[in-house]
Amino acid sequence: MFTGLSAFPLTPMNETEIDESAFSRMVSRLADAGVDSIGALGSTGSYAYLTREERKRVAQLAVAAAGTTPVMIGIGSLRTAHVRALAEDAQNAGAAAVLLAPMSYQQLTADEVFGLYETVTRELSVPLCIYDNPGTTHFTFTDELHSRITELPKIGSIKIPGVPLDPAEAAGRVNSLRSQIPSTVTIGVSGDASAAIGLNAGCDVWYSVLAGVLPKPCLALTRASQNDDRKTATALSNRLEPIWELFRTHGSLRVVSAIAEYLSLVESPNLPQPLRGLAEAARSRVADALQQVDLL
Amino acid sequence: MFTGLSAFPLTPMNETEIDESAFSRMVSRLADAGVDSIGALGSTGSYAYLTREERKRVAQLAVAAAGTTPVMIGIGSLRTAHVRALAEDAQNAGAAAVLLAPMSYQQLTADEVFGLYETVTRELSVPLCIYDNPGTTHFTFTDELHSRITELPKIGSIKIPGVPLDPAEAAGRVNSLRSQIPSTVTIGVSGDASAAIGLNAGCDVWYSVLAGVLPKPCLALTRASQNDDRKTATALSNRLEPIWELFRTHGSLRVVSAIAEYLSLVESPNLPQPLRGLAEAARSRVADALQQVDLL
Repeated sequence: MFTGLSAFPLTPMNETEIDESAFSRMVSRLADAGVDSIGALGSTGSYAYLTREERKRVAQLAVAAAGTTPVMIGIGSLRTAHVRALAEDAQNAGAAAVLLAPMSYQQLTADEVFGLYETVTRELSVPLCIYDNPGTTHFTFTDELHSRITELPKIGSIKIPGVPLDPAEAAGRVNSLRSQIPSTVTIGVSGDASAAIGLNAGCDVWYSVLAGVLPKPCLALTRASQNDDRKTATALSNRLEPIWELFRTHGSLRVVSAIAEYLSLVESPNLPQPLRGLAEAARSRVADALQQVDLL
Repeated sequence: MFTGLSAFPLTPMNETEIDESAFSRMVSRLADAGVDSIGALGSTGSYAYLTREERKRVAQLAVAAAGTTPVMIGIGSLRTAHVRALAEDAQNAGAAAVLLAPMSYQQLTADEVFGLYETVTRELSVPLCIYDNPGTTHFTFTDELHSRITELPKIGSIKIPGVPLDPAEAAGRVNSLRSQIPSTVTIGVSGDASAAIGLNAGCDVWYSVLAGVLPKPCLALTRASQNDDRKTATALSNRLEPIWELFRTHGSLRVVSAIAEYLSLVESPNLPQPLRGLAEAARSRVADALQQVDLL
């Protein structure tokens, strides 16, 4: 399941509850659009801000709404004991895979992170995707650590941060990692602005924030690259540049939250406080960008 | 209560439970030693790794074991709604103050952090200490933001990170912050290696990791500085240099965990996984350092 386009939906909420019907509608919309998989409770799905009970419920809703589209569930937590419980809940909910980031409060050592994956994979019956996201976890993987972890059972994919924007450098990055991990483990690019470059450089999958709200242009980009039409993939990404620019300025989460509001997929506000949605001026720029890229 | 020496105890635990009797004994020991306050569920108390129920229980135990010594309870969490619940629990447990760090997963803006403190202080009946710890929260306060937040009601102190090791620079840092906050708000130094410099530079309180396991030398240092005997305070800190060196290498939490084991205050392991205690070689260096500084 770790190939093609994996779309990461928001988990819309207010201070007292999750908007379950909006979430289910968003997941169904992604499945209907034909994405290859759905990554619920990723960073964009605000997993880190929810209780175990809330996460169990969201996992159940995601699997129910996704139909035959496989669902990956984020199981990251600061404490290993809690990750194990979340893994059990995700599997009981019918997750086809789990996604695990080494969340940190105290800085983690490489051995501690290896130990986390070793403990969790020992008990898994579904494959796991390593979530390498230093921007939120403040842990930086080395390729050597990826190599050690991918020797564990059940590791199916690595979700890497954005690749270098130079195509040759990107290919160097992907090939270097690929040479150090088993051939059964796929490499997925995130950092949407570098997705076309990553896919063209040989990444197997795009773990996409934007696809959670705008699956169609992301599918077109992914399919072009899968068909070896790199030029079209690059052109489709360049067309989305006004969106990437907003991602760089405000962070992708706040921007897709505003896009989802603009598309009336969710109510406002929909992020967990203390996070705030975009201010009015930035919201206008989001609307302008959407009209500019002609995606509506 | 935000003056003098505030000692931050460990919350010893294994993968299934908190070692409640060891925790209570450690808190009583600190009160008996005569520290001015106890900071339970700080970073050293692993607050970020515990459930709401566990934190409620630890707060109750801390207040009970501290006797007449005032107890400050850490209420940080990624989500504002959870911080509010933890504040309520801490106050119900009898906390004399609460300590709040702006924990982050998604990067926070200054307005979001201000909003967190605004929401939480509105409901508080005890004073709050701002916990400025970029090493664990990955949020960097500006003095301008400290100024805005300290205008809110109930703000009693700011726990700042380590000060510059040059005494003149340290005084400049403390005086600059002091000029931008109300006179009712105290400034507390953390980063134990710079505590003597911070106190000598005019900090009102030392929020101390080491005092959680070795209160006596930390009290001696604090009292010397309070009596304007800067030379003795500096000498006492210099004597602890073998400990500060271990803090720099391994992080203060893992070192005080090993010290607490060495002193038979706690069992091994006592940190929440994925965190691990020190390896055998480092543990020997801890024992050597303790003998070298002659504190046992």
